[in-house]
Amino acid sequence: MRILSNELSAHVGEQVRLAGWVHSRRDLGALSFLVLRDRGGLAQIVSSEPLELVPETVIEVEGQVVVAGQAPAGVELQEPSFRVLATPVEQPPVELRRPILKESLPMLLDFAPVALRHPRERAKFELAAASVAGFRHAVDRLGFTEISTPKIVESATEGGANVFAIDYFDRPAFLAQSPQFYKQTMVGVFERVYETGPVFRAEPHDTARHLAEYTSLDAEIGFIRDHFDVMQVVREAVSGMVEAMRERAGAAIELLAVELAEVPDEIPWVHFADTGVDDVDLAPGDERRLCEEHGEWLFVTGFPMAKRPFYTHPQPDRPAYSNSFDLLFRGMEIVTGGQRLHRFEDYVAALDGETEPYESYLQAFRYGMPPHGGFALGLERWTARLIDARNIRETTLFPRDLNRLSP
Amino acid sequence: MRILSNELSAHVGEQVRLAGWVHSRRDLGALSFLVLRDRGGLAQIVSSEPLELVPETVIEVEGQVVVAGQAPAGVELQEPSFRVLATPVEQPPVELRRPILKESLPMLLDFAPVALRHPRERAKFELAAASVAGFRHAVDRLGFTEISTPKIVESATEGGANVFAIDYFDRPAFLAQSPQFYKQTMVGVFERVYETGPVFRAEPHDTARHLAEYTSLDAEIGFIRDHFDVMQVVREAVSGMVEAMRERAGAAIELLAVELAEVPDEIPWVHFADTGVDDVDLAPGDERRLCEEHGEWLFVTGFPMAKRPFYTHPQPDRPAYSNSFDLLFRGMEIVTGGQRLHRFEDYVAALDGETEPYESYLQAFRYGMPPHGGFALGLERWTARLIDARNIRETTLFPRDLNRLSP
Repeated sequence: MRILSNELSAHVGEQVRLAGWVHSRRDLGALSFLVLRDRGGLAQIVSSEPLELVPETVIEVEGQVVVAGQAPAGVELQEPSFRVLATPVEQPPVELRRPILKESLPMLLDFAPVALRHPRERAKFELAAASVAGFRHAVDRLGFTEISTPKIVESATEGGANVFAIDYFDRPAFLAQSPQFYKQTMVGVFERVYETGPVFRAEPHDTARHLAEYTSLDAEIGFIRDHFDVMQVVREAVSGMVEAMRERAGAAIELLAVELAEVPDEIPWVHFADTGVDDVDLAPGDERRLCEEHGEWLFVTGFPMAKRPFYTHPQPDRPAYSNSFDLLFRGMEIVTGGQRLHRFEDYVAALDGETEPYESYLQAFRYGMPPHGGFALGLERWTARLIDARNIRETTLFPRDLNRLSP
Repeated sequence: MRILSNELSAHVGEQVRLAGWVHSRRDLGALSFLVLRDRGGLAQIVSSEPLELVPETVIEVEGQVVVAGQAPAGVELQEPSFRVLATPVEQPPVELRRPILKESLPMLLDFAPVALRHPRERAKFELAAASVAGFRHAVDRLGFTEISTPKIVESATEGGANVFAIDYFDRPAFLAQSPQFYKQTMVGVFERVYETGPVFRAEPHDTARHLAEYTSLDAEIGFIRDHFDVMQVVREAVSGMVEAMRERAGAAIELLAVELAEVPDEIPWVHFADTGVDDVDLAPGDERRLCEEHGEWLFVTGFPMAKRPFYTHPQPDRPAYSNSFDLLFRGMEIVTGGQRLHRFEDYVAALDGETEPYESYLQAFRYGMPPHGGFALGLERWTARLIDARNIRETTLFPRDLNRLSP
């Protein structure tokens, strides 16, 4: 029976079997010290016979668990016997044995299949996995239903620009920029829905905060009063994400020294008109400034209609503004959301009567839809803020951008 | 405070508020009977004043909860007062009031945004949502890590044919037919990984069991002995899916009279060589016959190498066969899986030295990979088998196929 490296200390005095990769090896006089890496962490193995095992060799090893003050978790494996499962054909271009990788970001991305094996790289994606689980758990508790909606769509209608075109059986089609239309449609079915999945943006700029493909955590909710009801769901969602990280990714949090962000019971909010911004949208500098002024969590509400999509619900008493919001976290927008239009005639008006490209979307509204709203959270951006990454590519497994299409 | 229709019976004698859609209405003499539909189910409302509310009107209604033997769940709402939230601009082309919809499948798909509101349609996707949750829960318990891998890929290498081409910033790219290469790569990182997400197949045939886009539940596991270790994970996964449906989708199971499939502790298996099939793969008729002979759950193992992809591990003692399997459920393949090659030199041999298009995939193997294997389960096909659907489109929210690209 194989055990994991982080289970060793429960087996002092026993003969056990580990399996994993040779993370590093050094020889000190007659002794060889080998560090094995498995999904549980790292374990030290000490051999009094010379070892020929190069880093990244895949091994099984049996030995005796012995208390050793200097070793990780205070235990090591002694008198080991090895079985080699696979030998690397060359040494990795990334030096995995270092506590912190030294290679440049482009280098780490080019060699992601091996760079991701480093405990600190891996830990980022443990935070991501825990966050998604926490999101689902939080909205499940609120009665949301998970849906899977098509990523291949007929029209490039949602945002206009920035869509990828596909050859669909010799017809044009496009990759969905978001599940927006479908999640609204599904409010007519389940009232409360969510989806966690890929979205696609043909971003023509190479920035540190945009990707051509990323993971969007989307939710939509019916029978709301206004966008403040949606903001309450956002609060529950991010709070669930933080909670799940604490429960499921404790080792990753410790390794990366992540400061988890306590979510206040009520996240403060400020209306766009009161932000001092003299434009129709926030610039990155505004986002940073607002968080310095108000704290690490801040809703900005009431964005000008001029910069929000056509389905946005105006603010009833100030129709140049909208019932929309962004959630800023540590100086950056991580969630966008708001109340949507729900009356068919409001869509006809918002589209200036040009409803034809939107016929299948408008079906839901033709046949009766409640007041509703929703939001989307970009997973990679969320984890980037958590670990204070400079570039969103640091928290994306295999990024896609203007220049990068592999690995 | 709004309550749901399925909570009514806990509020007898109280004044409550419901919200939802007018599902149907009939007038009997001086009385109007209205059925309201919300995410909880259906509720009867009785009014002694004439009601002008047409089906699919979105309403809030307050009234008195009264015991009524003839009503659903034995209670109804009396002395109602209504507030209209939205009025449909026309009556739906699908008659939602019928206990079972009468419209043809193409009609139901064309009008999916409204047809899906029917309780029986909706229930299918509650089964799907519960199944995915159960899958995740089962593999989480086994120490798997969730990953999100790119759907836009550089080469059409995995299956050769049946890929969709994309215009990626004026370069060719393709939609991933599966997360296969990435989930194998990630075994090098997390040992055990899973992903639930869309996959894309440019299926040139219009059949009742294929889609151009579907939801794949994928898992991959390292440090296995052979494919039988993978089959044990499959057994845990499907068992978790059945369990989660029972826990989370009881009403849907009852409404659709689904016979849940008990998963035996050991799912029986038969080697391909012993199936009596005189070909390199199973035909649909073979799958039906084998389940008649062996039961509703059956693994077929050892498929001929001739029909399995290049990364398939051969059966060591009979190399014309492979360490692969399909899981048949009620006469149809729902899972495909197996052990993969893990040594770099085995990939070079399997690709006849033509490794160049696979360079980024082969990185993982160049730097040491353990014996591993995995599987993929098609969600829509799974729920189709559960409800004994004739066509996989019946269990797909918004199907994509040769002819269908909207809604």
